[in-house]
Amino acid sequence: MAVKKPKLKVISLGGLHEIGKNMTVFEYDRDIVIVDCGLAFPEDDMLGIDLVIPDITYLKKNQEKIRGIVLTHGHEDHIGALPYVLKELNVPVFGTLLTIGLLENKLKEHGLLDTTTRHVVVPGETIKLGQFRVEFIHTNHSIADAVAMAIHTPVGTVIHTGDFKIDYTPIDGEIIDLHRFAALGEQGVLLLLSDSTNAERRGFTMSEKSVGAVFDRIFEETPKNRIMVATFSSNIHRIQQIINSAYQTKRKVAIIGRSMVNAVKTSMELGYLNVPNNTLIDISEIKNYSDHQLVIITTGSQGETMSALARIASNDHKQVVVKPGDKIIISASSIPGNEKSIMRVINELIKKGADVVYGSMEDVHVSGHAREEELKLMLALTKPKFFMPVHGEYIQLTAHKKLAEQMGIPKTNIFLNSIGDVLELSKKEAKVTGTVPSGQLLVDGLGVGDVGNIVLRDRRHLSEDGLMVVVVAVEEATGEIVSGPDIISRGFVYVRESEDLMEGARKAVEDALLEEGTDGGWNHTKNVIRDALKEYVWQTTKRSPMILPIIMEV
Amino acid sequence: MAVKKPKLKVISLGGLHEIGKNMTVFEYDRDIVIVDCGLAFPEDDMLGIDLVIPDITYLKKNQEKIRGIVLTHGHEDHIGALPYVLKELNVPVFGTLLTIGLLENKLKEHGLLDTTTRHVVVPGETIKLGQFRVEFIHTNHSIADAVAMAIHTPVGTVIHTGDFKIDYTPIDGEIIDLHRFAALGEQGVLLLLSDSTNAERRGFTMSEKSVGAVFDRIFEETPKNRIMVATFSSNIHRIQQIINSAYQTKRKVAIIGRSMVNAVKTSMELGYLNVPNNTLIDISEIKNYSDHQLVIITTGSQGETMSALARIASNDHKQVVVKPGDKIIISASSIPGNEKSIMRVINELIKKGADVVYGSMEDVHVSGHAREEELKLMLALTKPKFFMPVHGEYIQLTAHKKLAEQMGIPKTNIFLNSIGDVLELSKKEAKVTGTVPSGQLLVDGLGVGDVGNIVLRDRRHLSEDGLMVVVVAVEEATGEIVSGPDIISRGFVYVRESEDLMEGARKAVEDALLEEGTDGGWNHTKNVIRDALKEYVWQTTKRSPMILPIIMEV
Repeated sequence: MAVKKPKLKVISLGGLHEIGKNMTVFEYDRDIVIVDCGLAFPEDDMLGIDLVIPDITYLKKNQEKIRGIVLTHGHEDHIGALPYVLKELNVPVFGTLLTIGLLENKLKEHGLLDTTTRHVVVPGETIKLGQFRVEFIHTNHSIADAVAMAIHTPVGTVIHTGDFKIDYTPIDGEIIDLHRFAALGEQGVLLLLSDSTNAERRGFTMSEKSVGAVFDRIFEETPKNRIMVATFSSNIHRIQQIINSAYQTKRKVAIIGRSMVNAVKTSMELGYLNVPNNTLIDISEIKNYSDHQLVIITTGSQGETMSALARIASNDHKQVVVKPGDKIIISASSIPGNEKSIMRVINELIKKGADVVYGSMEDVHVSGHAREEELKLMLALTKPKFFMPVHGEYIQLTAHKKLAEQMGIPKTNIFLNSIGDVLELSKKEAKVTGTVPSGQLLVDGLGVGDVGNIVLRDRRHLSEDGLMVVVVAVEEATGEIVSGPDIISRGFVYVRESEDLMEGARKAVEDALLEEGTDGGWNHTKNVIRDALKEYVWQTTKRSPMILPIIMEV
Repeated sequence: MAVKKPKLKVISLGGLHEIGKNMTVFEYDRDIVIVDCGLAFPEDDMLGIDLVIPDITYLKKNQEKIRGIVLTHGHEDHIGALPYVLKELNVPVFGTLLTIGLLENKLKEHGLLDTTTRHVVVPGETIKLGQFRVEFIHTNHSIADAVAMAIHTPVGTVIHTGDFKIDYTPIDGEIIDLHRFAALGEQGVLLLLSDSTNAERRGFTMSEKSVGAVFDRIFEETPKNRIMVATFSSNIHRIQQIINSAYQTKRKVAIIGRSMVNAVKTSMELGYLNVPNNTLIDISEIKNYSDHQLVIITTGSQGETMSALARIASNDHKQVVVKPGDKIIISASSIPGNEKSIMRVINELIKKGADVVYGSMEDVHVSGHAREEELKLMLALTKPKFFMPVHGEYIQLTAHKKLAEQMGIPKTNIFLNSIGDVLELSKKEAKVTGTVPSGQLLVDGLGVGDVGNIVLRDRRHLSEDGLMVVVVAVEEATGEIVSGPDIISRGFVYVRESEDLMEGARKAVEDALLEEGTDGGWNHTKNVIRDALKEYVWQTTKRSPMILPIIMEV
């Protein structure tokens, strides 16, 4: 009797049909390996939510199978959920030096440093995790030390690119390991999971080095004034180039913004950032230098309210006051949803006389993600039997699927999956055989998952029209009203200027209670109050505040 | 003794350092003429606000001087505040046929049709309003029947361009009246107020007709499938071109979306839209036609939640069900802030198999506003002595100022004003001499201006962490607690799953009340409750819901 061989299961718990919270589960027999564990930023309608993490119900049920979490790079959308997930699943974590360095900052904040096992790997290394062998392959991205994974399994090799681009002139001198992808392609790749972020963009993403050339020119064309550059704190290569341009033009560099200061510190300690001696100064020292001797590197490229740049723009930064002639470079593109905040900050800076370089004015930013031609190169080198586009909304996943079709991968071999879908693979076949629980957990303060749809619906209601609380005290024995109705409102109208309205509302409730009585039970009385007040407020204001009737028995 | 001659005052009550609520006041001696009366859409932090209108305190004080409101065109940011302002100031309104037609739809909704005096003017006409003569000059814009104004005053001629572009091949055959601007320039223009919306964009805005050519090609390349086009309902020329392409490819046209249906109806009645016989069909008739015989024109190009296109995308439209192969063209650019909503709608449509054309994929949209080279042409033709850029954020106004400087207008003759600034002009001089009250009134339901900073601050607080109401009943005579404390929360946590937390909170308040007593007066007792609960909730959840203590005396 033939024993049925186990199949490889590939399950995304995040990163499909959404931006962020990237997390992919690989399961074979009694072993599970997880690639990445990222967070997503809340949607506009998730009021008050700090961040969003994947639902890991499936992993909690299969905890004993998990051999480790392997990380592709240190961006929030790939490591940001780890502190929350590690509290539930204490499993070892593997990543390159910078990735683990950035993770350790997080673990410290969450008090998890002592209980979490960390392993630093180098690109090119292969580790054994149960029946999996996971190989780390150097790539290029907008953060240093990014890797793809070749996961060697009993049914074949799976490649997960992580986030990547192809940079022939990278800042650290190391081109993405094209040779290794080519060799794996020659040996045979069962499945490719590839980054779709820029799949709908034509052509090729420019080299990071092209930005350095623009910095050089702008710095040279700004001989007299102070320069500030806002960028992502994790983009170490960008920061390196700013420092290089500063050094060449004999400027000192000051770093501001908490995450920027941390990232620079970690990167210097680990050797990812080379800063010439006597180049970095503390922000408190800038008063000792003339404008033409200074560059300030800052957070806030997305217009974030509490960031250093936003505080500078609103004259609210302790050490930096913007002045006419300051050259301010926004070295980043807008993440969708941030456009208005960024424009607000730029407006304020221009108003104060600064000369702001942003958007398409100069080529001061390049993406870290591969466009069409690079994605095709990855497909060409790896020659996968099956293909699954990852990291993107439906738009990007579909665009990536079309590229794969154009390159000759049969439609039936391409899987445009959703999170939770279980893709089962043998050496010859692949198909979606079912689903596991998946979704999003909302994090609000210390609470993980305790804010759900009902709470969010209430927050939305409260945010639109505020609320009115109606309190009535009723004698327990007789049901007679002994105090009230009193009405308190918040977020509805400015009460001192709306006394007639509030008195009218009180009267409307009182009349309804007199007419209907209070002997129909609490729920009935509450409904009488709610209906009467709702009707009165709608007729007089065309608004629908939340109404909260409270009956006290005394 | 020489009598001091009056000066011309130019005061913007909206449209400077902001997008929308355009309104400019021209005052000479005992006469006031107002150009436009627009609304703005609320900023992200104006929770629950429907729209924003200008503060007209200054006009209410000078009501007897107002000779009329003259309108440049029928867009919301130029006429949308009229129903609110006309309730305060019953003054005659002047505009071209389509502008007045669109306004009348609004006046009807607000019950103002009978009480508002309307005058239809034709481009080229000049009307006398007190000591002003106002001349209407044909322009090109993304709505038909747009005009600029030459306001002839005792101290000289002022030109207000309104919104404009220069279209050499406009859909209605009428190029902006360059000859008239040239003639006025020859005679001498004292002050030019010119549209800055696209002042930071290089080059020339493409002709509206270029979009029609793209429609023609896409329609021809789509011989089998249904076509839907989403655009702004007021862009009558765009709608005309869609209808033209439909007619050429023998398709019937159905219109959906309330504002689209209204705009098409008004435009056809007034002769701005030429629809061949047997081309328009009711949406209920689409089932009688094959896909290749149909074009649906719809609202929702900005992803608005309740729009026809959004409802189609979420399978929530009664008559239109999207299906694989549908060609859907988003013929609009994203208004900043709408990017995510639009992408959500596009994602849903693609998921359902539609082929969506949007963004930079095809040139299916052009702006209605002049870019750098057109703005320079306007400056060159009108040769103004003084210049005031209008309609834009600081970024755009500054860019427009730079263009004027490049063209030789002295810096001191350019006025980068704020709303409320009073620019006083004689024949020779211009300077800002003071300010008048100005600002924004928030409209929420029927309320105008009754939602201010305190109410908005409360709405924001409620939206972030919800609220907790604490009720205690106290015996009037003794101060003894006879019922409670009871705690009710909304938008905080899902109470059924957080019973321990809620009981802990109740206990924390109870303990504090026992310790502190209730004989320090109501305010003291409320503070005891607030402090105890705040501390408990912060320690256990790191959240800060609004806390509302209510004490009932019985």
